[in-house]
Amino acid sequence: MSVLLLNDDDVRGRLDARTAVRAVRDALTAAHDGTLQAPPRVRADLGDGHLVFTAGHLRAEELFGFRAYDTLVGAEQLVAVWGSDDGRLRAVVHGDELGARRTGAIGAVAVDAAARPGPIRLGLVGAGTHAWTQLWAICEVRQVTEATVAARRPERAEAFARRAAEELGVRVRAVHAVEDAVRDHDVVVVATNSSVPVLDADWIAAGTHVTTLGPKTVSRHEVPVALADRADVLLTDSLAQAAGYGEPHLFPADRMTALGAVLAGAAPGRTRADQITVFCSVGLAGTEVAVAAALWESAQRN
Amino acid sequence: MSVLLLNDDDVRGRLDARTAVRAVRDALTAAHDGTLQAPPRVRADLGDGHLVFTAGHLRAEELFGFRAYDTLVGAEQLVAVWGSDDGRLRAVVHGDELGARRTGAIGAVAVDAAARPGPIRLGLVGAGTHAWTQLWAICEVRQVTEATVAARRPERAEAFARRAAEELGVRVRAVHAVEDAVRDHDVVVVATNSSVPVLDADWIAAGTHVTTLGPKTVSRHEVPVALADRADVLLTDSLAQAAGYGEPHLFPADRMTALGAVLAGAAPGRTRADQITVFCSVGLAGTEVAVAAALWESAQRN
Repeated sequence: MSVLLLNDDDVRGRLDARTAVRAVRDALTAAHDGTLQAPPRVRADLGDGHLVFTAGHLRAEELFGFRAYDTLVGAEQLVAVWGSDDGRLRAVVHGDELGARRTGAIGAVAVDAAARPGPIRLGLVGAGTHAWTQLWAICEVRQVTEATVAARRPERAEAFARRAAEELGVRVRAVHAVEDAVRDHDVVVVATNSSVPVLDADWIAAGTHVTTLGPKTVSRHEVPVALADRADVLLTDSLAQAAGYGEPHLFPADRMTALGAVLAGAAPGRTRADQITVFCSVGLAGTEVAVAAALWESAQRN
Repeated sequence: MSVLLLNDDDVRGRLDARTAVRAVRDALTAAHDGTLQAPPRVRADLGDGHLVFTAGHLRAEELFGFRAYDTLVGAEQLVAVWGSDDGRLRAVVHGDELGARRTGAIGAVAVDAAARPGPIRLGLVGAGTHAWTQLWAICEVRQVTEATVAARRPERAEAFARRAAEELGVRVRAVHAVEDAVRDHDVVVVATNSSVPVLDADWIAAGTHVTTLGPKTVSRHEVPVALADRADVLLTDSLAQAAGYGEPHLFPADRMTALGAVLAGAAPGRTRADQITVFCSVGLAGTEVAVAAALWESAQRN
């Protein structure tokens, strides 16, 4: 049995959203019930930057592994998975596609758990990789009846809309004003690198679910602090990671609920249709390992 | 340019001792002059064990990477190398062969630097993987006129001797008594898992070079404490790693010299033929990355 080695093209060709969503949903639940061990990231000093490792041990699946990335040159990432039953290396996935798609899948699980039931109108702020993989995965959990995208550079929003029509069959409207991608949508995904809020909390309609993927610390945040006042439920995929940035999280830690706890029925999520829910995506450690393992399992079946 | 993925068989087939010795010699020198950044190992908690990472950044070669191993199930190891010029993953080597061979190569560099010049009579205590890779690499730096091997299980020593004749063309005599593999040899390699000394310091003749690969802390050590009294020069491949075990090193830290400093001419090694030199092998971090990079370079040329 040889090791499965996959690059970005392989991941794009082989990873379907259903597989990714299922793998991260299981991992989120496992993080809640304690069968996923996902320790804080560790870093090795390379002089002008670091190698950073986020590890995960999925006890029930008898899998462990890690993601490695660097802050030296921003090289391609690496995810490795071993079986803990036989100690064999199963898969090595390199590049940036796997990480982005598992983040998309986590966001989709949050949407599925916290957005109002039924088809959705989706607003996207940002037209980069993360906006794309959120859309890719959300289409797996909900019917997207219409979508709107706003980006700092309009041509990127337009390219995003064309790609969505071609690859996902979703009609996406590119707009110039962020406000038009936020107001009057059931789900709003904010996926920018902005250090300052790109939207006004008042634009969020009652009943909306918001996912924030970009900066979310007290000094740098793409959504406004006031969003916490408007929100009824604040979720994150990892309370430990949300608390583990160099500086405090934008939102108060004591108001945050683990998505895994909601999935397990151990904590309330949305309880009324008019509530606003906010998901702060931090990228639960171990989820890359879970998705890489799912790719390995698919390869064994085919 | 695709990533080079190698397993143990590939390493056995592709890695020659000359390449391994050259790569680790360069890395040892780079550790001395500061162009190899080799930070302390870091570990991520998997619950019932750890994932451990030893990283290295070879600035002059524009390479960085790490070795990963676990204490959960003792799974196969993984070494990954990136180019820091283009950020591309170059090679992934899995299994245990690479690590053992680079340890052999480090030992060979120590023999070349510290043993008396000329052909050698080699004594080996232990007949496992590490004894084997030391012999493999030492044959690259010195003519081995005769060799003797002793092991706790005599049949393993005999199998070792047969393999040495077949694969390396070296005549090795299997003996029952450790004393016979130690007395009257120019180089003695001790490669056991023993927690208590397997030899007597008085057996070491004047002029001998000794390498110890096994346990070497104050409470667990395969060579006797008294060896420090007999030794004129105590070397190690990493002063930081030798000092970084959970408990103190067998020998006083202030008497230890870095092998890289000797290679660079910055510290004296052996200065007289009748001196006893002792090399404490700890496995300088970054040397696995250097050897994996050398395998990648060979593959580019072929």
